[in-house]
Amino acid sequence: MNPAAAAQVGDPVAAIDTPALVIDLDAMERNLSAMAAFARERGLRLRPHAKMHKSAAIAKLQIAAGAVGVCVQKLGEAQALADAGITDLYISNEIVAESKLTHLAALAGRVKLAVAVDSVLGIERLAAALKAAGSSADVFVEIDVGQGRCGVAPAAAGALAHQVVAHGLRFAGLQAYHGRAQHLRGADARAAAIRHAAMLVRAAQASITSAGMRCPLVTGAGSGSFAFEAASGVYDELQCGSYLFMDRDYADNEATPNAPAFEYALFVKSLVMSRGASHAVVDAGHKAHAVDSGLPRVWQRALVFANGGDEHGILTPRVAGGALPGLGETVWLVPGHCDPTVNLHDHYIAVRGGLAQGTVEAVWTIDARGRLR
Amino acid sequence: MNPAAAAQVGDPVAAIDTPALVIDLDAMERNLSAMAAFARERGLRLRPHAKMHKSAAIAKLQIAAGAVGVCVQKLGEAQALADAGITDLYISNEIVAESKLTHLAALAGRVKLAVAVDSVLGIERLAAALKAAGSSADVFVEIDVGQGRCGVAPAAAGALAHQVVAHGLRFAGLQAYHGRAQHLRGADARAAAIRHAAMLVRAAQASITSAGMRCPLVTGAGSGSFAFEAASGVYDELQCGSYLFMDRDYADNEATPNAPAFEYALFVKSLVMSRGASHAVVDAGHKAHAVDSGLPRVWQRALVFANGGDEHGILTPRVAGGALPGLGETVWLVPGHCDPTVNLHDHYIAVRGGLAQGTVEAVWTIDARGRLR
Repeated sequence: MNPAAAAQVGDPVAAIDTPALVIDLDAMERNLSAMAAFARERGLRLRPHAKMHKSAAIAKLQIAAGAVGVCVQKLGEAQALADAGITDLYISNEIVAESKLTHLAALAGRVKLAVAVDSVLGIERLAAALKAAGSSADVFVEIDVGQGRCGVAPAAAGALAHQVVAHGLRFAGLQAYHGRAQHLRGADARAAAIRHAAMLVRAAQASITSAGMRCPLVTGAGSGSFAFEAASGVYDELQCGSYLFMDRDYADNEATPNAPAFEYALFVKSLVMSRGASHAVVDAGHKAHAVDSGLPRVWQRALVFANGGDEHGILTPRVAGGALPGLGETVWLVPGHCDPTVNLHDHYIAVRGGLAQGTVEAVWTIDARGRLR
Repeated sequence: MNPAAAAQVGDPVAAIDTPALVIDLDAMERNLSAMAAFARERGLRLRPHAKMHKSAAIAKLQIAAGAVGVCVQKLGEAQALADAGITDLYISNEIVAESKLTHLAALAGRVKLAVAVDSVLGIERLAAALKAAGSSADVFVEIDVGQGRCGVAPAAAGALAHQVVAHGLRFAGLQAYHGRAQHLRGADARAAAIRHAAMLVRAAQASITSAGMRCPLVTGAGSGSFAFEAASGVYDELQCGSYLFMDRDYADNEATPNAPAFEYALFVKSLVMSRGASHAVVDAGHKAHAVDSGLPRVWQRALVFANGGDEHGILTPRVAGGALPGLGETVWLVPGHCDPTVNLHDHYIAVRGGLAQGTVEAVWTIDARGRLR
């Protein structure tokens, strides 16, 4: 029982019910083109992360602009996007539950599928499931390049790649994503983190060579650091996701030299539902935008957003005595973090012609919303 | 396109796919009974907040145990629960958008509906919508009793109640909820906050009396403070929601004297998908549990949960050298905050007989999941 969308195609922006997740299509398309051009000019593959947008309609736009396919983090996301017509999917994450691997093997029978591994047990179970289904998948060995989460040490990459092949699977290369590096504020700090990551990738490649194998591809990078991975000489494929929409957190980073600048393209439209003498209350709380990376920024108004709980946001003037919006007025919010914000909504309301005077051009289902397994 | 549920009725707990939102039914029913008895013994009405559980199946259990109906925060929640058979609903929040009020007035034609107001504009628009639909609703005037969010000052309650009646609407009483008080850790601090709130309620009642009216009912209170509202002598109806499931944040409060103690009844089942030498990674990140009130607690294991991002959690031993779970092992998490965690899931997996050896007794749709408008 999905909720009805907040607007219909052709509606003016003013008619969009609140709170609603709204895309500024003009800004999104500029972001889309800028990243596609960046990868193309450097001869790099682009495989954007669809864990961020969770939408087949958007994945198709990215693929039409040159992306080789998309990444996801969960089998359920891959299933939802495959059901909606995406045919080249990489689950850039480990799956070890046998029940899930049975479904993964079935999915591998109908799309081009890849998956990451970081354990022998994971390889054994994956191989058994694929064999039982008679299907095949590309297998990436994940190495830990500074994230401190999944992945083996670089020196262990060769042995694990050997296990992949020994189990009759295709070794496709290295998964080498450094999530923490994305959010280091200083450009120099991000550059240093990715220099270190690239050194670890080279160590993993040496380990693979020592095992008598070659490494076909290195995939990784995110919206906060991709220019450094691109310049490293070791990454072949970029997995950036957030560049398409941006968010308050990424925009708070110091700009990266020689990288395209991306614009805010994702907003939560909210409405003032209560007015005090010194504050206004909007109808969007943290059930409408994720707060894991901090609170939203108020778009183009000198207002500060304070957490008002699950269903409310509290606005005060940025400077004492500043103007407050009136009861019923629209306030646009830039989410702190786009990925988990998208996951709170069932539809994108895609607007052409800007937030002030635009028109709803499309309503896109967020196909993989809630696909957390 | 809702995801499939993580289990089916009759499955053993071990077969529940991860991550999944799991109710310990035995614990939930003890919580349900304890709160129902508390209200009944004091002659207070109980109208639990369904913004927390968003489920008609659970609302029906609460009503069967004596609740007069349920509260919600959003029109969309009210619509979803009405569609699933709940017939007495109070939107304890302001609605000022005319398009929403049209739908509210239609809903008021098919269920017993109440709503809060805190502005003359809101009253005017509500009256116009109800008149156009030929339906009626109970109207509560919200006063700010310390939350600093919606609601008028107590001294303004009489004038606003007069406006309600002047517009041909039924004045049902005062909405007087103090959200901030719920999360003050010390019991004395919560007691003091509610003493102050009760004083403000009395001031609002005096303002209503001065306006030549009477106040039929005072409604408010939450799971962190309800014993104080109950003892205040001014509250007639309790709106607690979280007592049913509890969460890490509420459990971190110092216990309230003379109030029932509630048990954890809501869990996220997760699985270890990667193992490092000194940490384990589970497949539940902040797309599976809300982090607005902090991170989850690991249930009955000496492990600390660190944020691993949208899809991962990182576990380390609470004491150096402590045991880590192995690859593929189940780890149960107690969410930091139950309300927004529930909103991330499409189903409850309700287990009878405990988390270790139990069986899935019910799979309940989270009817109002995502109903944020």
